[in-house]
Amino acid sequence: MGFSAIIFLFLTLLWLLSMALYIQKFGGTSVGSIERIQHVADTVIKTKQAGHQVVVVVSAMSGETDRLIGLINQAVDAPNLREYDVLVSTGEQVSMALTAMCLSAKGYPARSYTGAQAGIKTESIHQKAHINDIDVASLKAALAQDIIPVVAGFQGLSEEGEVTTLGRGGSDTTAVAIAAALKADECQIYTDVDGVYTADPRVVPAARLLPTITLEEMLEMAGLGAKVLQNRSVRYAGRFKVPLRVLSSFSNNPGTLITYEESTMEKPLVSGIAFNRSEAKISIFGVPFKPDVTAKILQPIADAHIDIDMILQNTTQDNSCDVTFTVNREDYRRALAIVETTAKELAARGVSGDNKIAKLSIVGVGMRAHTGVANKMFTTLAEEGVTVQLITTSEIKISVVIDEKYLELAARALHTAFDLDVSEPTEEFDPVVIKK
Amino acid sequence: MGFSAIIFLFLTLLWLLSMALYIQKFGGTSVGSIERIQHVADTVIKTKQAGHQVVVVVSAMSGETDRLIGLINQAVDAPNLREYDVLVSTGEQVSMALTAMCLSAKGYPARSYTGAQAGIKTESIHQKAHINDIDVASLKAALAQDIIPVVAGFQGLSEEGEVTTLGRGGSDTTAVAIAAALKADECQIYTDVDGVYTADPRVVPAARLLPTITLEEMLEMAGLGAKVLQNRSVRYAGRFKVPLRVLSSFSNNPGTLITYEESTMEKPLVSGIAFNRSEAKISIFGVPFKPDVTAKILQPIADAHIDIDMILQNTTQDNSCDVTFTVNREDYRRALAIVETTAKELAARGVSGDNKIAKLSIVGVGMRAHTGVANKMFTTLAEEGVTVQLITTSEIKISVVIDEKYLELAARALHTAFDLDVSEPTEEFDPVVIKK
Repeated sequence: MGFSAIIFLFLTLLWLLSMALYIQKFGGTSVGSIERIQHVADTVIKTKQAGHQVVVVVSAMSGETDRLIGLINQAVDAPNLREYDVLVSTGEQVSMALTAMCLSAKGYPARSYTGAQAGIKTESIHQKAHINDIDVASLKAALAQDIIPVVAGFQGLSEEGEVTTLGRGGSDTTAVAIAAALKADECQIYTDVDGVYTADPRVVPAARLLPTITLEEMLEMAGLGAKVLQNRSVRYAGRFKVPLRVLSSFSNNPGTLITYEESTMEKPLVSGIAFNRSEAKISIFGVPFKPDVTAKILQPIADAHIDIDMILQNTTQDNSCDVTFTVNREDYRRALAIVETTAKELAARGVSGDNKIAKLSIVGVGMRAHTGVANKMFTTLAEEGVTVQLITTSEIKISVVIDEKYLELAARALHTAFDLDVSEPTEEFDPVVIKK
Repeated sequence: MGFSAIIFLFLTLLWLLSMALYIQKFGGTSVGSIERIQHVADTVIKTKQAGHQVVVVVSAMSGETDRLIGLINQAVDAPNLREYDVLVSTGEQVSMALTAMCLSAKGYPARSYTGAQAGIKTESIHQKAHINDIDVASLKAALAQDIIPVVAGFQGLSEEGEVTTLGRGGSDTTAVAIAAALKADECQIYTDVDGVYTADPRVVPAARLLPTITLEEMLEMAGLGAKVLQNRSVRYAGRFKVPLRVLSSFSNNPGTLITYEESTMEKPLVSGIAFNRSEAKISIFGVPFKPDVTAKILQPIADAHIDIDMILQNTTQDNSCDVTFTVNREDYRRALAIVETTAKELAARGVSGDNKIAKLSIVGVGMRAHTGVANKMFTTLAEEGVTVQLITTSEIKISVVIDEKYLELAARALHTAFDLDVSEPTEEFDPVVIKK
């Protein structure tokens, strides 16, 4: 074997090692028109041209699922759930076929797969099935033949051979599950946002796109209202440690990679600031104290199917107690009426409510290793004259309730105080050349 | 065993014998809206209430297939045919699920079946596959459990497991094929026409709905422009002697039953009159005669993919010949230009054309056993001053080409001459109570 042959083998090996497998998932807006689908095909082709393999997952064209559900609602009051799933799953069948056609027409052989054809096996539950297993044989066969599989998101097949759907946001879960089953190098979720920011840029102009975020931070941010991905798919990714990247199909931004490293050495104290205006606060005070008083107050709320977020209880010196809690702003009137009835029954001194509040949170795994974060938060807010009404904390998060009118001021002050302000403009970055 | 037990068994036997299996197929207009689908469900339920079993076959909601093809045409010039079928077949999936939902909601358990789920096996050809076989096990299992199967028309599965479509009008073929495979008592094709008439009622007000028509007559009528069913499904029905009924989903009319009896004893001379205005006539005259002269004239027309219907050739005394033929009116200009070129090459004396003609035909298996039908036709036309320009005949049909302006006059005169005029109004008739 000559020297040049060795060089050749070495280069081939190098090429093989540099070839990655990406799952690229495109949401409803990304496949919302034929023009957008053409753009999706171009994105996939760019990844192929960089020498990588791709499995595409698509949602239904935006508006299509709602159109189909509209037909169902016109037809019957309570749809047969089997037929519901049969009908709604056609939305992804249309977009998968269009995407595969566009890829093929551009010279990149592609092939569409329904959930069933892609081997996605789910529970025997309609409308919100979980994925049990994926038999990736057919997808692997396609990849081996250099055919790009285009898989319908949001759907699968039950053990009984029935079409099932995974519920809203289910296409993300499909992508993550395929990534886990194929041990993909990265699962790229293309959306209409650039990724995860340190704060909502509409409120905090200095907000920065986070190149990485830990899974826990992501879950907290999403739970606090910073909706980028469905938490279900994020948790699923966490379970299988799937490298998950959120990025925009409308820009060349690298997006945000969700990581799983446990080390917080290099981590900033705070990774991001989340907030929402969707809650309202209700207080009942001067309730004669008994051990079950909180339960007596909250049970009627639970019975009315109203979710409670934060709860605060304190007992005063005269042995009466005050209970404050927050509910979704939509449920405010209903909850207030219930509490007023309860107050009479318990001989409480009074009830008050406020639906002009905002919840503001700082999130960061760095908090674990550092003390003084809470103090810095409260000092910053105090300096701005913002009164903190309620506080809850978790290991990597501190949330406060404040008057809604101070929200922008408080968010910007905290963003600056925790060194989150943008320092330099984000470089244009091509996700395809991400190093493995 | 007592007397009453014998009576009971006898009545049970009678009931079982009176229970029939109907395949009911509903076209795009019949499922064109949720309101129409509710009406389809009511029609099926009426049949069930009469004690019969039903398998439902549905087309896509009217306009839906065109909408899907529109998306494809927007996306690519030449679609991948596998993906084309995957996409277009979703139209019937939506209507089958909606129909099954409506039936279930009205208290009649139903279950939708894609072509694949219904066991419809086709050739490995996309867009216009033929059905090879049907594995009716799943449909039979549903019927045994008193579940109404609702099958997607127009689609099947190839041997390779690919979704195929049967081409336009394929839903009729699906219904006929299922009827043949299940040995159904009748295959009822619900359309937006009342059945087959002795002539188009818009032109001949005295036209009568035919309670029965023979297969051959039906094929001739359809071939002559009286479009009620796709000839392909009628031929398929003939092959398996499936009792096929065409009826309207908008009325309670009994429609027309296609029969297969060979006896013409009771048959009228003429069953119907068909006509169309969609042809044009081209003549080339004074062509020096050679054995291959007709071929030389018609070959360039065939090369241009223009279909020829009637052909007439006659040789004159001076050993030159005239050739006249008809083409689709849309192809008239193109065909005329081709013939003018040919005329020069062959040193013909001249070319003439006429696109203001109509083709008028009388159809009836009774013609076989009777002479004088042609003579009666020509006498009737002559009495009305209508000149016959071209004539072709088959065993059960005589077609003439006449000036378009005489069409209504001629059609009505023939309708009366052959005793086709309506004698009494058609009774309101419920197809469900058809005797076996």
